[in-house]
Amino acid sequence: MSAPHLEVHPWLVREPRVDLDRTGAAEALFSLSNGYLGVRGTLDEADPSVERATFLSGVFETHPLAYPEGGYGHPEEGQAIVAVPDGTPLRLTVDGAALDAREVEPEVHERRLDLRAGTLDRRLRWRSPSGTVLELRTRRLVSLSERSVCAVRYELEAVDGPAHVVVRSELTLGACPPEIHSDDPRVSAAIEQPFEVLTARSVPTGGHLALRTRRTGIGVAAAVEHDVDGAATVESEAGEDRVVTTVTAALAAGEIVRITKTLGYTWSHDLPADSLVQRAVGAVDAGGELGWEGLLAEQRRILDDFWARADVEVDGDPELQQALRYNLFQLCCAAARTTRAPVGAKGLTGAGYSGHTFWDVEGFVLPVLSLLVPEAAAELLRWRASTLDAARERAAVLDWKGATFAWRTIDGHETSAYWPASTAAVHVNAAVSRAFWVHANVTGTSLDELGGREVLVETARLWMSIGHEDAEGGWHLLGVTGPDEYTGVVDDNVFTNLMARRNLIRAADACESAPQRARELGVTAEEVRAWRAAADAVHIPWDDHRGVHPANAGFTTYREWRFADKRDSYPVEEHNHYAKFYRRQVVKQADLELALWWCREDFTDEEAAADLEYYEARTVRDSSLSASAQAVACAVAQHPDLALRYLRETALVDLRDIQEDTAEGLHMASLGGSWLALTAGLGGLREIGDELELAPLLPARLSRTCFRVTWRGSLLRVETTAGGTTLSVLDGPAPLGVVVDGVRHEVGEVPVTVPLRDPAPLRAEPTQPAGREPRV
Amino acid sequence: MSAPHLEVHPWLVREPRVDLDRTGAAEALFSLSNGYLGVRGTLDEADPSVERATFLSGVFETHPLAYPEGGYGHPEEGQAIVAVPDGTPLRLTVDGAALDAREVEPEVHERRLDLRAGTLDRRLRWRSPSGTVLELRTRRLVSLSERSVCAVRYELEAVDGPAHVVVRSELTLGACPPEIHSDDPRVSAAIEQPFEVLTARSVPTGGHLALRTRRTGIGVAAAVEHDVDGAATVESEAGEDRVVTTVTAALAAGEIVRITKTLGYTWSHDLPADSLVQRAVGAVDAGGELGWEGLLAEQRRILDDFWARADVEVDGDPELQQALRYNLFQLCCAAARTTRAPVGAKGLTGAGYSGHTFWDVEGFVLPVLSLLVPEAAAELLRWRASTLDAARERAAVLDWKGATFAWRTIDGHETSAYWPASTAAVHVNAAVSRAFWVHANVTGTSLDELGGREVLVETARLWMSIGHEDAEGGWHLLGVTGPDEYTGVVDDNVFTNLMARRNLIRAADACESAPQRARELGVTAEEVRAWRAAADAVHIPWDDHRGVHPANAGFTTYREWRFADKRDSYPVEEHNHYAKFYRRQVVKQADLELALWWCREDFTDEEAAADLEYYEARTVRDSSLSASAQAVACAVAQHPDLALRYLRETALVDLRDIQEDTAEGLHMASLGGSWLALTAGLGGLREIGDELELAPLLPARLSRTCFRVTWRGSLLRVETTAGGTTLSVLDGPAPLGVVVDGVRHEVGEVPVTVPLRDPAPLRAEPTQPAGREPRV
Repeated sequence: MSAPHLEVHPWLVREPRVDLDRTGAAEALFSLSNGYLGVRGTLDEADPSVERATFLSGVFETHPLAYPEGGYGHPEEGQAIVAVPDGTPLRLTVDGAALDAREVEPEVHERRLDLRAGTLDRRLRWRSPSGTVLELRTRRLVSLSERSVCAVRYELEAVDGPAHVVVRSELTLGACPPEIHSDDPRVSAAIEQPFEVLTARSVPTGGHLALRTRRTGIGVAAAVEHDVDGAATVESEAGEDRVVTTVTAALAAGEIVRITKTLGYTWSHDLPADSLVQRAVGAVDAGGELGWEGLLAEQRRILDDFWARADVEVDGDPELQQALRYNLFQLCCAAARTTRAPVGAKGLTGAGYSGHTFWDVEGFVLPVLSLLVPEAAAELLRWRASTLDAARERAAVLDWKGATFAWRTIDGHETSAYWPASTAAVHVNAAVSRAFWVHANVTGTSLDELGGREVLVETARLWMSIGHEDAEGGWHLLGVTGPDEYTGVVDDNVFTNLMARRNLIRAADACESAPQRARELGVTAEEVRAWRAAADAVHIPWDDHRGVHPANAGFTTYREWRFADKRDSYPVEEHNHYAKFYRRQVVKQADLELALWWCREDFTDEEAAADLEYYEARTVRDSSLSASAQAVACAVAQHPDLALRYLRETALVDLRDIQEDTAEGLHMASLGGSWLALTAGLGGLREIGDELELAPLLPARLSRTCFRVTWRGSLLRVETTAGGTTLSVLDGPAPLGVVVDGVRHEVGEVPVTVPLRDPAPLRAEPTQPAGREPRV
Repeated sequence: MSAPHLEVHPWLVREPRVDLDRTGAAEALFSLSNGYLGVRGTLDEADPSVERATFLSGVFETHPLAYPEGGYGHPEEGQAIVAVPDGTPLRLTVDGAALDAREVEPEVHERRLDLRAGTLDRRLRWRSPSGTVLELRTRRLVSLSERSVCAVRYELEAVDGPAHVVVRSELTLGACPPEIHSDDPRVSAAIEQPFEVLTARSVPTGGHLALRTRRTGIGVAAAVEHDVDGAATVESEAGEDRVVTTVTAALAAGEIVRITKTLGYTWSHDLPADSLVQRAVGAVDAGGELGWEGLLAEQRRILDDFWARADVEVDGDPELQQALRYNLFQLCCAAARTTRAPVGAKGLTGAGYSGHTFWDVEGFVLPVLSLLVPEAAAELLRWRASTLDAARERAAVLDWKGATFAWRTIDGHETSAYWPASTAAVHVNAAVSRAFWVHANVTGTSLDELGGREVLVETARLWMSIGHEDAEGGWHLLGVTGPDEYTGVVDDNVFTNLMARRNLIRAADACESAPQRARELGVTAEEVRAWRAAADAVHIPWDDHRGVHPANAGFTTYREWRFADKRDSYPVEEHNHYAKFYRRQVVKQADLELALWWCREDFTDEEAAADLEYYEARTVRDSSLSASAQAVACAVAQHPDLALRYLRETALVDLRDIQEDTAEGLHMASLGGSWLALTAGLGGLREIGDELELAPLLPARLSRTCFRVTWRGSLLRVETTAGGTTLSVLDGPAPLGVVVDGVRHEVGEVPVTVPLRDPAPLRAEPTQPAGREPRV
C-alpha cells in the first residue's frame, strides 16, 4: 500500500501522522489547484519529495516521437507538461541543523486539507538537535479567486527555548522534475531542461523569474514577495534559475516568526519577457492587496458557493462521504479557472500521462461540471472547440472528412504514438460531440454558444467518411477500436456504432433547427438526409445464440480468457502481448457496459440484464475509467448493492491509491466518475431529455443519499431515503418538471416526495472474474 | 529511371557505357557473392559510389529498438548487417592526377558480368590529363569454390606514351557505409561504427585487419596479398582501420602493370583475434595456391555444373531469357556457400532491410533451391532449424505453445517493431514448415535430416494454441495478418487458415510415419488426433453473394478503394494511414492469390477463376513479392499471356530497377519468384505429390520454354513448344514417373513428348486497377 493513512472526516482530509514513506501519493492528494495554477502537496522544506512541481495549465514542451518502424501519418511530435518555477520551498535551518522530518522524531506531524476552506495546513512539532522544541504551522492555498496566485503562511515558534532560525524561501526551477517515461535521449533532452531563463531579478523581499520554453516558445513569469512579522532580517538574491529570500531570526522561548509568501504566475505564447514579469508582479500585488485574510475569505466564499450548488451527502458510509466530497473539491479546483487550456487526465496534480487530456474528460468530467458548475464546463468546451482546426488537419492527413479529435494532446494536435489505441479509437469524437450536446441540453443554452453545432457537423462528416453501407444496406464502422483497449482493430464495435448514430442524428437535428447556421457551415439538405439514412442503417451486431450483444462483430466467438490461471497477471497488458489478447474475451474497461449507460434507450431491459451479466464476467477493470461506468450499468440493471461497490471503488481510487499510481497525479475521470456513479447510477439521473429524469435506488448499506444539480438554471436538491425521494428547487426558476421513474413531477421550493421503488433485477447479481470484484 | 542501360545478351549482363549517374542500382546488379562473402559492384577507384560495401553473411550488430509507446513483448533489440573491411578499392593516380571517371571522357568504359565465368569485367580507356591514353582492364570474382576468397586482376596499360602510375590498393573500414534508416541517434551510434579494431598489420605486399563488433562481439578478420607483374615497387602500410598497399610504376608506351589482389575473410563468435587472422591469411594463401587461373577455372567449373542442372531457355523474348539466367546466377551465388547464416532479403548485395531474412526466402527462394541445388537449400534449412530455440522463446513470451518464427531477423530473434505486420503475421510459420516439407518431398530425404519434423511439430503446436474452435465447431484464427500487408489484424485469413490446415496435417502425417521420433518430440496420439480434428474443422470464409472467397472474414464487404482517384498515390502505404486502408478492398500483394498457388487443390476451377478475377481487380502490387504469385495464379486459371506479363515483371525487377530501390540490393524473392513463375506458372509444376506434376502452357509470345529440375536425384529436362512438352532424364535414376496434365508418364533418357494443351480459361482475362497492370 502506498496511500497515506488518512482520517475519515466529512469535511477534512487529515493525515494525523505524516508518513514520509508514502509521500508520492500524498503529494498528489494534497495538491492545490485552480485549473490555471497547480501545486503538488510537497513539504515546505522541499525534501523528501517524489515529484516536487508547480504546473501552469497550457505550459508544455514538445519532443520528437521517433518510431523504430514508422508509417504514414504517425504523429512526429510528442508533448509534455513541464514544471514551472516552484515556490513551495521554505527550507529551515535551526541552530545550524537543516530540518529533515526523517531525521527528527516529531511529537506532532500532521497535514490536513480543509474542503470548505480550500487550504492545506501542516503542523510539525519537534525537538531540534540543539534541544529546543519548535512548532511549525503552515497553511498553503492556491487562490480560487485570483487565478495566478499561490500563497503560503509560514509560522515558526520556538516553544521552550531559544533558537537561531534561518528560512531559505525559494522560487526555483531546480525542482525534483517529473519522471520521464522514455528511453529516447531526445525526449529527455527536450523535457528535462525545457526552459531558457530570460531574466532572474531580486528585490529585498522577493523577486521574479522570466523563462521561455525552447521548442514551443511559451513565455512564463513567476514573482514572489515575502511579508515577515517578528524580529527578523530579510534579504533576497537572484541566481541563475532561482530567487532565494533568506529570513533570519533569533527567537527567544515562546517567540514566533511569521512569513507570508505570495507567488504570482503568468504565461503567454507571445508576450515579451518584460510584460510577462509585469503580469506576474501584478498578480503578487493583487494577492498582497487582498491580504492573507482576504485570500482566505475569498477562498471560503467561493467554496461555500460551490458546496451550496454541489454538495453530496451519503448516510451509512462515512468513508464514501469523505471521498465524494474530496473528489468534488479536487474536480472543482481542477476546472475552476482554466483558460485556453484543457484539463489533463491528472489535472495539475502530477505529470502523469505527460499532462495530456483524453476523451475521458469529455466523458466523465464535463457532464459533471455541466450539472454543477456550468461556467467551468463552458470554458473547457471552448478549449475543445478551439482545437477544431487541429482536428480537421488530422482528418485531412487520414484522408477523412470533417474533424477527428486527438486521442491525447495538450494543444489539440494528436500525439499518440500507437495508432490501434488512438487513431483507430474514433469513438472519442462521439464523446466530444456528446459533451457539447449534453452541456447545451443541461444548461438550456444554444449549441452555438461554445461551438457545439460546428463540432456536431464536423464529427457527423467524419462518421460519414469512415463508415459505409454494405450491399445489404447495413451501415458499418470497420477496423476501429472501442473504449476497451484489450480488443483492438475490430469491426462494428457496438458502443462506437451506437454513439456514431447519436452523433449523426444530433447533427441532423442541430442543422434542421438552425437552418441559417447550417448553411454557414456548408451543410446541405442532402447531407442531412444522408446522415439520417446512415443513422437508420447503423448495424448493431447481435449474438442470437447467446442472447447478448457482442461488444463488436464476433466478440462472443473469441476464445475465453483463462481468468483462473491468470489471477496473478494483471494488468493483462503488462503480461501479455496485443497479438494474444486483442481477440480474447477479456475486457479491460467498460465498453458494451458504457453503452448500457450512455445509450441506455437502445437496449431493452432484458438485453441490458443479459449483456451486463456477460460483460461483468469478462471485465478485469485494468483501467480506472471502468468502475464508474460499471456502477451505472449495474444500477441500470437494478443491482444497487453492486453499483455501490463499484461506486466505492471509483470514489476511493486516489484516497486509497487503488491503482498504485496516485503519486503521478489524481485520476480526474475517477473523481468525476464517482459523482456520476452516485447520480446517474444510484440516482438514475438522465440528462438527455428535455426534462431531467431520475430513477433512484438505495443500496442496503446507505440510509440516505442527497445530491444537487443545476438544470437549466434551477438548483435542484434530490434526497433519497427509504421513505422516498424528496425533490426541491433551492434556487432559480421554479417549478421545474422532473421525471422520476417515468412520471413527471412539478418541483418548486416546497419539497415533493416520490416513493422509493424496490430494485427489480431481471437476473441475479452478476459476478466478476476471480480477483477482479470491486475493490475496497 | 535509375537502372543502368544494359545490353540484352543470353549469357552476359553488359553495360556498354558506364553511367555514373545510375551507379547505385549498378552496384547491386554487379554484386558478386558466394553466400558467405559478398562484394558490391563498385568501381575500382572507389568513387563515385552510393554504397560501397563488403558483407559477410552472419556478421551483424544490434541496436536498441525504442518505442514512443511501448508494450509487452515488443522486441527491444534491432539487428543490422554491417559492412566489413572492403578490399575493392584500387585507387589510381596517373602523373599526379587521381582517376575519377566523372572527370575524364573515356573512349571506352564498359562493365560486364559473365554468367558462365562468374566474373565481373571492366574496361576503361581514357586520355589522362598529362596526355597519355591509358587502358584499365580489371576482372573481379568472389570465389564459388573458396568461400572466403575474393580476387581482383587489375591491369593497366600505358597505350601511347609514358605514365607514372601509383595504385593505392586498400583493405579498409573507411567505406561508404550503408544508409541508416533511423532517426534514433542510438541506432546510428551502434551501426555507424560497429567495429572495434583489434589488430592492423602490414607485410610488404599486403597485411590484415582483425576487428570485433562492439555489441554482438562477432570477430572478423580480413587479409590481403598483392602479386605484381611488371617493373613496379610495392609497399604496404597498416593504418588505424586499413591496410594500404602502394604499387608504383613508371610505364613506357605499351607497358603494362598487372596486379593480382587476393582477399581472405573469416568471422566467428568466439575465436580470438590471432586465430581469426590466421584463418583469413590461410584463405589468402589458399587463393594464392590455386592462382588466378585456378580461381577462374574453378569458378567456371562450378557454374558449368550449375547451368547443367539449372539452365532455363525461352525463345521469343531475349530480354526475359537474359533476366531469367541473371536471376538464377545471382540466386545460385547468394546461396552457394552460406554457413550458419540466412540469406537476407537482399542477399549480400546491399544493406536494404538491414540484411534481415523474411518468410519470402522460405516461400520464393528455398523451393527453387530444393529443385535446382538441394545442397544449398539444405544449408539454409539447417540455419532455420537452428533458430527453433529463438522461435520457442518468442512463442513463450507471447504465451503461445510451440514455436513462432521471426518475421525479420539475422540470428533468429524477432526484430520487427510493428507487431500488426509481424507478430500477427503468423503465416510465416506455415511458409517455414512448408519449405522443410517441400524439400524433403522434392529430394526424397528424411524430414529429420534437417530438423523438419521438429519444425512441423512445433508449428502445429503453435497453430493449436492460437486457433480455437467456436461453439458451432468451426476452427478459427482470429486477429492475424495474412500476406497482404494492407489488410491487418483480421479474422480467418483464408491463406493463413489453409496453410495452417496443411501444417497440421503434415505434422500429423510426419508423426504417424515416424512414431519413435514423434515420441522423442513428446507428441502423443491424442495430440495428433487434436491436430487432425482442428484441420478438419478449419473455417474457410465464403461469400455466397459474390461467389468468391473473402481474403478474410468480411473482406468483400469492405469499402472499395477509389483506384481511379488514387492513381498517383502509390505505394498506398506512403500516402495513407493504416487506419484507412486496413479495412478497404485494396490488396498490396498476392494473398488469396498466393493461396490459389500454394493451396491449389483447395479451390475448384470455378472458384479459382472467380477469385482470380476478383483479386486481380483489387491488387496494386506495391510489393515485389507479388508479381510471381500473380503469374502462377493467372497460369492456374489458364491465362498464360497474362502470366507471362507478370513473369516478365518479376524477372526484370532488378535489371530494370522497377521498384526503384535496386540500389539497396537485389530482390532475392523476385529472383527466385521469376523461376517459379516460369516453372510453377507456365510449366504448371507442382512439387507436393509423390511424383512431380506438370501442366504446361505456352504464351503466344514464346515459341519455346525449357527448364530443368532435380526430382529425387533425377535431373529432368522439360521443354515446351507448340508441338508439345518433351521430357527427358539427363542424369540420375530413371525412368522417372512424371504426371503431365493429370496423366502419368515414365520418363527416361529417351525423350517423351506430350501434346500441348490449349489454355481453357473459365473467364475472360482479368483486369487490374488503373495503372497497376503488369509492368515492363
